[in-house]
Amino acid sequence: MREPQVVRAEGLPERVTVYEVGARDGLQNESALVPVEAKAEFVRRLVAAGLPAVEVTSFVSPRWVPQLADAEELLAELGPLDGVRAPVLVPNERGLDRALAAGVREIAVFGSATETFAQRNLNRGLEDQFAMFEPVVVRAKAEGLVVRAYVSMCFGDPWEGDVAIPQVVGVATRLLGMGADELSLGDTIGVATPGHTTALLQALGDAGVGPERISVHFHDTYGQALSNTLAALQSGVTSVDSSAGGLGGCPYAKSATGNLATEDLVWMLHGLGISTGVDLSSLVATSAWMAGVLGRPSPSAVVRALAADLPDLEG
Amino acid sequence: MREPQVVRAEGLPERVTVYEVGARDGLQNESALVPVEAKAEFVRRLVAAGLPAVEVTSFVSPRWVPQLADAEELLAELGPLDGVRAPVLVPNERGLDRALAAGVREIAVFGSATETFAQRNLNRGLEDQFAMFEPVVVRAKAEGLVVRAYVSMCFGDPWEGDVAIPQVVGVATRLLGMGADELSLGDTIGVATPGHTTALLQALGDAGVGPERISVHFHDTYGQALSNTLAALQSGVTSVDSSAGGLGGCPYAKSATGNLATEDLVWMLHGLGISTGVDLSSLVATSAWMAGVLGRPSPSAVVRALAADLPDLEG
Repeated sequence: MREPQVVRAEGLPERVTVYEVGARDGLQNESALVPVEAKAEFVRRLVAAGLPAVEVTSFVSPRWVPQLADAEELLAELGPLDGVRAPVLVPNERGLDRALAAGVREIAVFGSATETFAQRNLNRGLEDQFAMFEPVVVRAKAEGLVVRAYVSMCFGDPWEGDVAIPQVVGVATRLLGMGADELSLGDTIGVATPGHTTALLQALGDAGVGPERISVHFHDTYGQALSNTLAALQSGVTSVDSSAGGLGGCPYAKSATGNLATEDLVWMLHGLGISTGVDLSSLVATSAWMAGVLGRPSPSAVVRALAADLPDLEG
Repeated sequence: MREPQVVRAEGLPERVTVYEVGARDGLQNESALVPVEAKAEFVRRLVAAGLPAVEVTSFVSPRWVPQLADAEELLAELGPLDGVRAPVLVPNERGLDRALAAGVREIAVFGSATETFAQRNLNRGLEDQFAMFEPVVVRAKAEGLVVRAYVSMCFGDPWEGDVAIPQVVGVATRLLGMGADELSLGDTIGVATPGHTTALLQALGDAGVGPERISVHFHDTYGQALSNTLAALQSGVTSVDSSAGGLGGCPYAKSATGNLATEDLVWMLHGLGISTGVDLSSLVATSAWMAGVLGRPSPSAVVRALAADLPDLEG
């Protein structure tokens, strides 16, 4: 299978952590309900392809996200995943109880940078979101868990339009102040451009939040995800969220046509000589297989370009 | 219609020329034959949307590219296009005769960076390609025309694999040495990554070919076109080729799923505060209309995200 030609560029990291969100953020936004055995195979294949962090599922209420109602069952089916980060999303204290009972060692909470999206997604205001997350983060840290905090709508909001950078910095520092270890800055509706990316990371740095605590999470709704990622790498970020095969999107964000595809990200990183530990060929085969499970083609450009080269797809 | 939030980035140009290839490179690679009246309307709408350079058609033999067999008819239908560059591709001296007879003021020749693609696309070797182009370029310059030289397969070749940078520099300097005014560096199969882009532009600069004589032409086959464009802008390039609605590709390049979409490019440029003169809303409406003519959805992410906002599409 074709691999990119390697030509390094100045000022970029030697190694990047690809944080894989397809099994959670991807599948929760697919209309198809995937059987638990297929989800387990998906996660195992992602781990086998070398992804160092695979967000597995969410302990959200099944009434909100029926696609992930099998969270306990999936974790039991998977058993311990050695040598890999396997975080699980928890929306509240009830979710944390379930995560702890299931033996999860890393959690993520999902916050909003804007008042309106907090109201729409969490049914509470921005201040109330902090009140909901604080006991979750404090208790998770007391239990020795690693905690990631998503900040969604960092670059634009479908209802509010532009989102001011100081607003995002304020939300981000509140979440870190509670004890979160890592932030994931989300461009949930995909409107960001590279200068905006650089400016937000600069403002966070000025507020004492360095790139070592930041992952970036871009959506490809306007085709901008990879150029924004390049700008983030140039600002020192070394962790990037992406979704195998470009699975998913955001059900509450108009025209959110999907996460950055992991394969498209890995093509760029490997072409830049940046190590990821990912075997691109195994990953493409995994996404091509999942596209078959879902009964639709993958939106990833790299999967479409390379899947024809897969001998095992014919079988 | 939503516009990107403007946040400038350091070290980027104030203004970029968007060189629109959809009417030629796009339509020549579509299976549908578009009526000449629709082509004329397409070009007029592209010009009205503010695009400063619109490649109109090609004087290639109708036996090779039946989609553009109506070149003379289209130019006659259009008449003079004031205040805009309206280049036409010419493959050889016969094509130049036709272009001059039609009153064309700017031409483009289409060269290859690799021996194998020259053989496949032009049915002659690399040296013979120069022998074919030289009289075209020399006579066009003597007639006072502006001459652009495409260099295809600059970053990879479907048969040869990797393409060495000095090989591309050699071909580029030969074409400029004949008298060409501008180069368009093509990633015909879409495999380039940003470090490769920077390195090629650096090598050309070292050979005396500065960014003011270069346009970049990326394909989105592997999803890399816009991040490569960002790297090119960071290297001082101020001209970028793109195709309205992402029309076209390359019929001889496996998996060449299309040119960079002009709308996706313009979203990034405008978000970066870079002037283009393009009205994004008019452009999206034009590409949505052309998608209807072709009977298939646009592959442009921005067109897909924004076309739903177009009131005139309902009519």
